[in-house]
Amino acid sequence: MADPLGCTVAKSRATVVRLMLPTDANFTGNVFGGAILEEVDRVAYITASRHAGTQCVTASFDRVDFLAPVHVGEVVDFEAQLTFVGRSSMEVWVRVRAEAVVGGTSTPVAEAYVTMVAVDAELRPTSVPSLILESADERRRFEEGRARMEARRRTRPGGRT
Amino acid sequence: MADPLGCTVAKSRATVVRLMLPTDANFTGNVFGGAILEEVDRVAYITASRHAGTQCVTASFDRVDFLAPVHVGEVVDFEAQLTFVGRSSMEVWVRVRAEAVVGGTSTPVAEAYVTMVAVDAELRPTSVPSLILESADERRRFEEGRARMEARRRTRPGGRT
Amino acid sequence: MADPLGCTVAKSRATVVRLMLPTDANFTGNVFGGAILEEVDRVAYITASRHAGTQCVTASFDRVDFLAPVHVGEVVDFEAQLTFVGRSSMEVWVRVRAEAVVGGTSTPVAEAYVTMVAVDAELRPTSVPSLILESADERRRFEEGRARMEARRRTRPGGRT
Amino acid sequence: MADPLGCTVAKSRATVVRLMLPTDANFTGNVFGGAILEEVDRVAYITASRHAGTQCVTASFDRVDFLAPVHVGEVVDFEAQLTFVGRSSMEVWVRVRAEAVVGGTSTPVAEAYVTMVAVDAELRPTSVPSLILESADERRRFEEGRARMEARRRTRPGGRT
Amino acid sequence: MADPLGCTVAKSRATVVRLMLPTDANFTGNVFGGAILEEVDRVAYITASRHAGTQCVTASFDRVDFLAPVHVGEVVDFEAQLTFVGRSSMEVWVRVRAEAVVGGTSTPVAEAYVTMVAVDAELRPTSVPSLILESADERRRFEEGRARMEARRRTRPGGRT
Amino acid sequence: MADPLGCTVAKSRATVVRLMLPTDANFTGNVFGGAILEEVDRVAYITASRHAGTQCVTASFDRVDFLAPVHVGEVVDFEAQLTFVGRSSMEVWVRVRAEAVVGGTSTPVAEAYVTMVAVDAELRPTSVPSLILESADERRRFEEGRARMEARRRTRPGGRT
Repeated sequence: MADPLGCTVAKSRATVVRLMLPTDANFTGNVFGGAILEEVDRVAYITASRHAGTQCVTASFDRVDFLAPVHVGEVVDFEAQLTFVGRSSMEVWVRVRAEAVVGGTSTPVAEAYVTMVAVDAELRPTSVPSLILESADERRRFEEGRARMEARRRTRPGGRT
Repeated sequence: MADPLGCTVAKSRATVVRLMLPTDANFTGNVFGGAILEEVDRVAYITASRHAGTQCVTASFDRVDFLAPVHVGEVVDFEAQLTFVGRSSMEVWVRVRAEAVVGGTSTPVAEAYVTMVAVDAELRPTSVPSLILESADERRRFEEGRARMEARRRTRPGGRT
Repeated sequence: MADPLGCTVAKSRATVVRLMLPTDANFTGNVFGGAILEEVDRVAYITASRHAGTQCVTASFDRVDFLAPVHVGEVVDFEAQLTFVGRSSMEVWVRVRAEAVVGGTSTPVAEAYVTMVAVDAELRPTSVPSLILESADERRRFEEGRARMEARRRTRPGGRT
Repeated sequence: MADPLGCTVAKSRATVVRLMLPTDANFTGNVFGGAILEEVDRVAYITASRHAGTQCVTASFDRVDFLAPVHVGEVVDFEAQLTFVGRSSMEVWVRVRAEAVVGGTSTPVAEAYVTMVAVDAELRPTSVPSLILESADERRRFEEGRARMEARRRTRPGGRT
Repeated sequence: MADPLGCTVAKSRATVVRLMLPTDANFTGNVFGGAILEEVDRVAYITASRHAGTQCVTASFDRVDFLAPVHVGEVVDFEAQLTFVGRSSMEVWVRVRAEAVVGGTSTPVAEAYVTMVAVDAELRPTSVPSLILESADERRRFEEGRARMEARRRTRPGGRT
Repeated sequence: MADPLGCTVAKSRATVVRLMLPTDANFTGNVFGGAILEEVDRVAYITASRHAGTQCVTASFDRVDFLAPVHVGEVVDFEAQLTFVGRSSMEVWVRVRAEAVVGGTSTPVAEAYVTMVAVDAELRPTSVPSLILESADERRRFEEGRARMEARRRTRPGGRT
């Protein structure tokens, strides 16, 4: 079912935007790092599934740095795009920015590389379309993603993708 | 504290984007109309507060038509922009579109006009910057919004704005 | 499956009552307007489904005025009853009142007319029982509801009911 | 602050009504017993606080029998009234009934006696108005409640009320 | 499907541990008693289902005393073990302890006996393995549980187990 | 306020245990990877705050591999312990295991290293007690943690810890 001609990076780019509510606050009054990662996982799911044309499951998160606290009342953007595509696994790059509703400037708060695997109805890995690279920047990110993917394979406990 | 020179429509434009999860489903497996309105209220809050530079409260929703059902697994966009601004009240126009993650096309699912009122720390109405209109389209919407606002004032039970 | 003799207004009247919790608060410490509309939609669903004897979906909300803020710690009543019934669509009138737990008096906070459509298992509109009107008041509301429904049909973008 | 003349049973009677949603389902597709008890606790809070005129905390639940399963899509009524009032503690009797939205008949599903304690701003027990008994039924329930309260005091581990 | 040789108490012992978050707070800033009971029900479900090897439903809660308030920011332990096993019903003893994250000591906050019934796919009661008693303490608890179960049967309105 | 003599690894070890409910399911019926990370963040918070004796915020997650899907109805254990402690930052090692309620065996599903930073009331980094190492294993993990922490410092965008 995978498109033999491949799909562009632009086709599966996705954004989720959310107003952080009082119910998102932890004990310091800011937003839990884990709550941010929950949305990162969802937007990575959208991008991976759009490209694959199937359901996807999360295989791994690369290191995530939290660069600044996220406050209740801020609008948070989660932008996702593909960097690398293997046979059934895809690397999704997610950038998170936050901005106060009133008088805020958009500030980077976190960044992550999430590896998603396309699965069929029985949740077995299934092949995905190749990624059409349209710029030097996309080609560079693809090579960097391939290097990270190979490093992950070497060090993954048990391995699955 | 209101900017004496006013603010543009573009400055307070806001978007919220959300993946509809299995927990958003009602008994038919689709998303409750009321759950859509809850997000409409939030994005209208963002736009109104950005313009006002203060907290805002919801004064009214104009009629909302649900044009198509929203399904679990769809990505829903809520886009808000100001149409009309009075002394302390603002009319926010919200358009809602949904798109399946896999193979979907973006489809309008609802549209609403929400009236928000800027409030101070004691929750009393407070004045807001004027709206700088930059195109014929914005000017036309402003006049239509003014007409709706006047109609609302005439028919509002009790009145407040 | 629709009852050939029709059903009374009383038969499908419904009430939902909810204590507003700290988790229902927005940034001003009061309850979001959208959270109120979410419950309005649910109680309208109960009344419409009780009358129809089938699942129902929301077609539209008429204008909703928020007459007073709803505070955390208040008990909120949502009362719904049918005003008008067409072939597959029904107009539900919902009144919302709030009362502080301690020393409060019941105060109207919002009112809405919600149009619901009865659907079959494939989510296609299906016919509903006629509405048996038992008082002059119910007859008057029925005629007013019919007028609103016809106005909605004329102005609805795309139309569905 | 307690009303020296006391308050009637009717004055603090409370009802909470809730549509059980798909998100309320447990693994059998029915509603968790514990989710029912969570609402029982809330409605008992409303009744106790209305009588006391202060915040209240839960001291104990008496045995609760679940008489029938509660299904998703049912409307559940939680009715609470005072049976017995001591110096700072109150016994609240809560009856739970469920009814399918379509074609259901109201069926008892659970019953509970909850002991609540009125507290001041420092969460220390504080005295409550006496209970004005207006019928033989209320007087009988009061004596039964007094007997249960005394039994609880004798057997409570540690004791607090 | 029930194991003819029975299972030990140790085999089905279960623990649930949860950090109480700001969203768990009631109006006094502490955790609702009903929220504690919701978790008690879940851990009792785990223990009963582990022993039964099937789904289980809650038949009753015995009296529950709240010995101390539970605060937001505390880690709460819910420990469950079987005391008595009948043909299809099981008594689960649940002890709840809370401890502040910083500098806290573990304090008992509640205790409950929950009766669960094993059910088959049609939710009809089904027989469970017998309970292998390995210590004098377990034998004593079993006899006490049998006495409570018989008392419940005599006084249960309607009866079901 | 930091204990001059330091604290052992055992003192701040923490476990969170949770039954995965139907509301935790994603589109494949399994649990979202992001939902697992949300709990990982919470248990890391408990361990770090117990050691520090203050509030803590999340600085980073190291790579997390999801070794097996987590299913609704499984009991999931999140075990956290300190590996390395700097001046104000701490590395917490979290292991996640899942086990079906009925007939399951405990299976590793994920593992993560989370860096938390102790903060004072103004959310500025504050110093923490040193870590008392009681075994060769703890000493080895400490050295490995120190190496990871130094690698993080070199590559962190902006840096904060």
